[in-house]
Amino acid sequence: MSAGPVVVLAGGVGAARFLRGLVRVIPREDLVVIGNTGDDLWWQGLYIAPDLDTVTYWLAGVADESRGWGLKGDSFTAQNALAGLTSAAWFQLGDRDLATHLYRTGRLNAGAPLHQVTAELAERLGARSRVLPMSDDPVETRLKTDAGDLHFQEYFVRERFRPSVREIYWTGIEAARPAPGIAEAMSAARAILIAPSNPAISIGPILRVPGMRALVSAARARTVAISPLIQGRAVKGPTVELMRAEGIRPDALGVAQLYREIAAGFVLDAADASLASAIAAMGYRVAVRPTLLDDLAAAREVAAAALDLLRQPAAA
Amino acid sequence: MSAGPVVVLAGGVGAARFLRGLVRVIPREDLVVIGNTGDDLWWQGLYIAPDLDTVTYWLAGVADESRGWGLKGDSFTAQNALAGLTSAAWFQLGDRDLATHLYRTGRLNAGAPLHQVTAELAERLGARSRVLPMSDDPVETRLKTDAGDLHFQEYFVRERFRPSVREIYWTGIEAARPAPGIAEAMSAARAILIAPSNPAISIGPILRVPGMRALVSAARARTVAISPLIQGRAVKGPTVELMRAEGIRPDALGVAQLYREIAAGFVLDAADASLASAIAAMGYRVAVRPTLLDDLAAAREVAAAALDLLRQPAAA
Repeated sequence: MSAGPVVVLAGGVGAARFLRGLVRVIPREDLVVIGNTGDDLWWQGLYIAPDLDTVTYWLAGVADESRGWGLKGDSFTAQNALAGLTSAAWFQLGDRDLATHLYRTGRLNAGAPLHQVTAELAERLGARSRVLPMSDDPVETRLKTDAGDLHFQEYFVRERFRPSVREIYWTGIEAARPAPGIAEAMSAARAILIAPSNPAISIGPILRVPGMRALVSAARARTVAISPLIQGRAVKGPTVELMRAEGIRPDALGVAQLYREIAAGFVLDAADASLASAIAAMGYRVAVRPTLLDDLAAAREVAAAALDLLRQPAAA
Repeated sequence: MSAGPVVVLAGGVGAARFLRGLVRVIPREDLVVIGNTGDDLWWQGLYIAPDLDTVTYWLAGVADESRGWGLKGDSFTAQNALAGLTSAAWFQLGDRDLATHLYRTGRLNAGAPLHQVTAELAERLGARSRVLPMSDDPVETRLKTDAGDLHFQEYFVRERFRPSVREIYWTGIEAARPAPGIAEAMSAARAILIAPSNPAISIGPILRVPGMRALVSAARARTVAISPLIQGRAVKGPTVELMRAEGIRPDALGVAQLYREIAAGFVLDAADASLASAIAAMGYRVAVRPTLLDDLAAAREVAAAALDLLRQPAAA
């Protein structure tokens, strides 16, 4: 492999767990994360980027890893006071987490583009890797559900993903462009990894940014995807339902079909080993590993396996 | 006196100390505060209204009265984290105080006018009096100083009022209108009191809102001003320097001259008793009292004296 960066397309906590392992097998400084911003929201005046923050906090070692969001040891004084003022305080923010959003919003309102502010936060919080938003342009993941037309966070946090989802769509996506730095990172990359994130609402919006799919396709021989599903189930959350809403078969085979034109390697869980030959038949190099990434050793192993696939001779 | 409300034109902490006494001599429910919004600022994405909050917090009994701003017992976790991210974190906000700004900003961004949000906060925080902004329209108090052209808060908080002030001006003032409810409250008022606040940058912007001075003038016979100066000195802060910048003589006589066309009564400090006859000669009914309002008994006494002036027969 060349000496270029390792680029990872990433959602939130699933990607963060994977990245925690990846930075044990490559130098942190070689990592470039491209994060989903479709879940971002303006909330009480603040711009919140849940996936970018999750990735940054985990890489910096300051995440609350058991809860999966926010900062470890954070307090909720402001949140509790807000809950005393309004019943609309459904989005949970810790006090130190708030500082991130205050910083970001202040910089955005002063005219700094999101990719620059994201880089500043990664540097100041100590991530020691590059974190890029998929785009500086506003993109919003919205869901048509039996409880109405909802922003992703309304569905996920406020409604605790109880409503049935009929359709997923994105506002702003046609006008979005990949953030500055993405094209250069991808063309220089020694590997592009698609993190084990929700293909529908985490990786989906990244690949929908006009121009992004072509950038990954051009690097197909250097791209490996990691399945987020084990025996057709997600580790947590509504991944399966959202994949169904997008018409994606909710198992490793469906994920492999989805990425077959942009990835040359595929890592799936040991419990799904029976699907390996069918996935190899799609043209993938395949690795089978335990992919439950709660465990740091497993995350490191999956990351190493993904990179190893790129060292193998091309599939037939 | 009639049964109408008592309307008070108010700045920040000086007014708040006075109001704490006033609500001991009138029912809280009779009070309508018209607060200065020239000091308001957008900061890190949040809309902050320092004078409205100070008045509301003091009336609700939740203010940090010794510090003079913010909420008693508040923590500064978010503020401290923000200071770790940027040196621009000069405006101090407690965690529970942040909830006020998050609430207000969320409501404003949803389209609610400032007077409505201010009323909601007063009600939810337990002020049990009406608090109105001078205007729903944005007005900004700015200072030309030897350290540049500054927002009032930059001068006051960030620069700790060290720069010399050459000129005070207001952006947005020509287009501003008194907030809904002000005209009605003033015409129904049994008394209008001008709190012992800075005449230049607290009461000044209120009276500069087009239409406001005419509303007070029309009620001149029911209006009493309380001097914020004792022997030509302010209790704290840059009142004297800012009055000089506005061309106002910085003593009780200068304040009386400033308000002579809109007020019929004047309360000055016992230490300034020698000025009483000159002020009476301007046409004022005059009361002389100790006006250092740190003391609740003194604040109550001054409030009672102001209202008593309106029970006296008109001056010659």
